[in-house]
Amino acid sequence: MNPLLNASHLFTWPVRVYYEDTDSGGVVYYANYLRFLERARTEWLRAKGFEQTHLMTYHHVIFVVRKVQIDYLSPARFNDTLSITVQVDAVSRTTIEFVQRVVGERECARARVKVACVDAVTFRPARIPNELVQTMESCQNGH
Amino acid sequence: MNPLLNASHLFTWPVRVYYEDTDSGGVVYYANYLRFLERARTEWLRAKGFEQTHLMTYHHVIFVVRKVQIDYLSPARFNDTLSITVQVDAVSRTTIEFVQRVVGERECARARVKVACVDAVTFRPARIPNELVQTMESCQNGH
Amino acid sequence: MNPLLNASHLFTWPVRVYYEDTDSGGVVYYANYLRFLERARTEWLRAKGFEQTHLMTYHHVIFVVRKVQIDYLSPARFNDTLSITVQVDAVSRTTIEFVQRVVGERECARARVKVACVDAVTFRPARIPNELVQTMESCQNGH
Amino acid sequence: MNPLLNASHLFTWPVRVYYEDTDSGGVVYYANYLRFLERARTEWLRAKGFEQTHLMTYHHVIFVVRKVQIDYLSPARFNDTLSITVQVDAVSRTTIEFVQRVVGERECARARVKVACVDAVTFRPARIPNELVQTMESCQNGH
Repeated sequence: MNPLLNASHLFTWPVRVYYEDTDSGGVVYYANYLRFLERARTEWLRAKGFEQTHLMTYHHVIFVVRKVQIDYLSPARFNDTLSITVQVDAVSRTTIEFVQRVVGERECARARVKVACVDAVTFRPARIPNELVQTMESCQNGH
Repeated sequence: MNPLLNASHLFTWPVRVYYEDTDSGGVVYYANYLRFLERARTEWLRAKGFEQTHLMTYHHVIFVVRKVQIDYLSPARFNDTLSITVQVDAVSRTTIEFVQRVVGERECARARVKVACVDAVTFRPARIPNELVQTMESCQNGH
Repeated sequence: MNPLLNASHLFTWPVRVYYEDTDSGGVVYYANYLRFLERARTEWLRAKGFEQTHLMTYHHVIFVVRKVQIDYLSPARFNDTLSITVQVDAVSRTTIEFVQRVVGERECARARVKVACVDAVTFRPARIPNELVQTMESCQNGH
Repeated sequence: MNPLLNASHLFTWPVRVYYEDTDSGGVVYYANYLRFLERARTEWLRAKGFEQTHLMTYHHVIFVVRKVQIDYLSPARFNDTLSITVQVDAVSRTTIEFVQRVVGERECARARVKVACVDAVTFRPARIPNELVQTMESCQNGH
């Protein structure tokens, strides 16, 4: 495992860099890191037992991104294998704040992403389904 | 005007190549030409007086792509200005076939795109709205 | 002109939302706002008389994004016309900080983007070419 | 295994559909299937023992797409898991023709993709490295 990632409870999702992700500067295009971050959040949610299609159909909610802060530290390149981490930093009744990292041979990017639970049709804030809140709480307590 | 484009009735839409469109090979990523082609078809439709949001809301139809044949002739690069052409080649009750070209300093790509009119919800084939058929017919007759 | 944009010196670049920009939530995908922001910065640079291809070939520098902070305020949708603004907020010898907004019928997003000038090959920090610094200074002074 | 895929020698690469891949029509955006096809070709090449970065550095060649024919049969949607197949259909000294399929619950797309080996700098046709030709020949013979 990449020594840059040493937290034992960290959810990590691997991403391979394909041509589609790069630009003519020879590196991953800056907007595409946000796609990697979302893939990892989606897979983190799935690993916890939640499918977004299920949340949409049965709870009528979707998650939308409210805020992103991202620092680009070192460029990732074509064919690199990256580890995308997901860590819940704060939870409110309708929002989740994640801290995420993109790590290849070196740390490529570090981000803080605030996601809001909204009604799937009106896009108004909605309560995060209870089961998900409980799952996140038990994770933060280290269980 | 680009001498490669000499047909007087050809609809043409300009596209500037940004970093987002390129890959680390230094050229436009092959899938992105399909985005350019669609931008031009959308703007062709708009130039004829049809907004897709209107077709969706009032006619309950959307257009989906059924088939693409594309030849990549010469790579387009970062910062190039491209002309994307749109020409209707064949029309049926539910489909339109376009011939499209991507032209920079040289011809970059040539494509044939078959688009189908479908119900916006069920995705089943639907008749192309009459006004649009009439507009296309009058164009093909050179009016 | 959009009344949400009333500063007389603001550089503004129009962007049309196509299918390629949206996701199945029915709105513009969050990473794609970063593509819009970059198109506007590129066109701002061009409007000031600087082509990135020229900066690369003759000054051996490219601009890379170091940091993005973006707040998503209101979702943009298919077929919307957006205005992307560009405002220089701070300039150092090797970096430029932009404040940018994405405005449709409502304000969709607000961002702060820090861009660094780097050597086109080594990606090490490089001085921003003098002519560009002077151009930015004269703009900030309101000329 | 998906019963739609019953050939024993078929290389198959799994792709999960994320929001980034979809559009506001609720389905995978048509250009994005080309990204999936390329991911599978890249992984097929890797499975055969060839890294594109190695081919570039030591053989000075890259692969570029010359021609795509793709039929869209049934839309893939958010959260679907797709199988992308790769089959070599024809090989010349400088080109490879692939037949590829995108299969979810139903067959979503079928494509024929012609790829050319070119010099990494001049983009002129180049011979496919011998080891790769031999590997493909042994596969076609069913070994």
